[in-house]
Amino acid sequence: MSVLIVGTIALDTVETPFGKKEAILGGSAVHASVASSFFAGTSLVGPVGADFPSEHEEFLKNRKIDLSGIQRLPGKTFRWSGYYEFDMNQAHTRNTELNVLTEFMPKLSPELRKSPFVFLANLDPEIQLKVIDQLESPKLIAADTMDFWIRGKRDALHEVIKKVDYILMNEGEARMFMETPNIPLAARRLLELGAKAVIVKQGEHGALLFTDDTHFSAPSYPQDAFRDPTGAGDSFAGGFIGYLAKTDDLSQGNIRRSIIMGSVMASFNIEDFSLDRMKRLKAHEIGDRFDEFRKFSQFEALSIEHWV
Amino acid sequence: MSVLIVGTIALDTVETPFGKKEAILGGSAVHASVASSFFAGTSLVGPVGADFPSEHEEFLKNRKIDLSGIQRLPGKTFRWSGYYEFDMNQAHTRNTELNVLTEFMPKLSPELRKSPFVFLANLDPEIQLKVIDQLESPKLIAADTMDFWIRGKRDALHEVIKKVDYILMNEGEARMFMETPNIPLAARRLLELGAKAVIVKQGEHGALLFTDDTHFSAPSYPQDAFRDPTGAGDSFAGGFIGYLAKTDDLSQGNIRRSIIMGSVMASFNIEDFSLDRMKRLKAHEIGDRFDEFRKFSQFEALSIEHWV
Repeated sequence: MSVLIVGTIALDTVETPFGKKEAILGGSAVHASVASSFFAGTSLVGPVGADFPSEHEEFLKNRKIDLSGIQRLPGKTFRWSGYYEFDMNQAHTRNTELNVLTEFMPKLSPELRKSPFVFLANLDPEIQLKVIDQLESPKLIAADTMDFWIRGKRDALHEVIKKVDYILMNEGEARMFMETPNIPLAARRLLELGAKAVIVKQGEHGALLFTDDTHFSAPSYPQDAFRDPTGAGDSFAGGFIGYLAKTDDLSQGNIRRSIIMGSVMASFNIEDFSLDRMKRLKAHEIGDRFDEFRKFSQFEALSIEHWV
Repeated sequence: MSVLIVGTIALDTVETPFGKKEAILGGSAVHASVASSFFAGTSLVGPVGADFPSEHEEFLKNRKIDLSGIQRLPGKTFRWSGYYEFDMNQAHTRNTELNVLTEFMPKLSPELRKSPFVFLANLDPEIQLKVIDQLESPKLIAADTMDFWIRGKRDALHEVIKKVDYILMNEGEARMFMETPNIPLAARRLLELGAKAVIVKQGEHGALLFTDDTHFSAPSYPQDAFRDPTGAGDSFAGGFIGYLAKTDDLSQGNIRRSIIMGSVMASFNIEDFSLDRMKRLKAHEIGDRFDEFRKFSQFEALSIEHWV
């Protein structure tokens, strides 16, 4: 099954303790689409300006990502500039130039409206709602958001949460939005708002899934080759929805595997700047790392001999 | 097999968003011993003053904890006073009265010197070394520490790490001690110092085990009945070593189960102030919660059909 991903396409300037890179390929929809493309046919919808380098487009085409939904607008591509300190959990924004993003209003082609699996990457929730309105009988919609929209567009975000199957937030955002430091409680409140499932991204601590009747705790990879965290959450989402679409199996067991696959893709993404690690990534490495996740997180039941 | 636990016995004054309690039973060795006592015969070694209430001693005796190693000293019992804000991950100390702790020098009886499983709870590392010197052929020694000793007694702590099998630290302490924000890297450096295994306690994010050739990531319990985190790390350690001693099985699989059992005991400890939840705890609840840990963290391998 195919995947539709709507979000930003960016030129990022990123500084981490491992170096500084100027105007490199980034954006929520780009990171998510590249991760998804390892599993399923993926269409990317987002805006670029006249300055968007053709080499980036070539890379996305080589990954067999459908770019028919890219909107080419006059002006400059969205740019973000930021840095990470020694503790790379927290991005610090230096500068955001919205540029063509202010003009972006997605109009889906008849084919893209039929997309069964949809990921609405971080974007204005009002625009996310416009995309949802254009979809014809999607099987699964997942949406991400960020603190900026929690502060500024609370009502629209409530609407998004009602209409999607999976809402993704990081820990800080879930706490802020639901006004409690307790993550299980915040997740329960998000479910009460109408989300069918909540995924709380915890960065170096893994990810949690909450539904009305299940909870799943996914570990993170013990990554010491960690150079640039930009796009980790989007790679997670892309791996998650791409693997779900590939397998077309919404059983609880397969949803868990999909969350692990998201964590696998995030663990590769952070090994280098921009999409550089993804450019070198081979399918067998993905399977091997998934196996590693199992090896370092599984444990046996208590033996009856010791526990009755 | 039996467990020896050496550490503090305290009267704590604790304030959390759920209330304030004055001079309640606490201390690193008390929390650890109570958790351990659900699994194995446990001896507690630590100092108390003349003001230590007999009701607390009765409770420990009722848990069948051997108190022959308690040192009764003139003066007052060690007291700690602190509070937690809405985000209960971080304890804030208001006041520490060392009292009898300044006089404490453990002298083990001939029986206690033969203890096979030993947990050195948070204490001055110079005193931890004195305990290690008195042990006769222990099977396994685990030691905890805290930022105070990392800052003030770095050399003695290095010696402790060389001499024990398991060193336990929380994330912040491991980062501070090994001077890197990267936890897998900090753990590797601790192993290079001579520890056979490192357990990094992550509070609400679970725990990590690192040895030279294995890694294990243990989830945390999605706890929303969370009233007082004091002693969570010590309950973890007590559950870990108590279950190891009960099973007397140092295989990798059983060490993993022991870490989960530590997490189980910590998850109960934080449900109420002091040892109040532990006073009501039943063995079948422990087994049930262990099963819950399995249910919310296990996942299947990729199917060959989808991944070759």
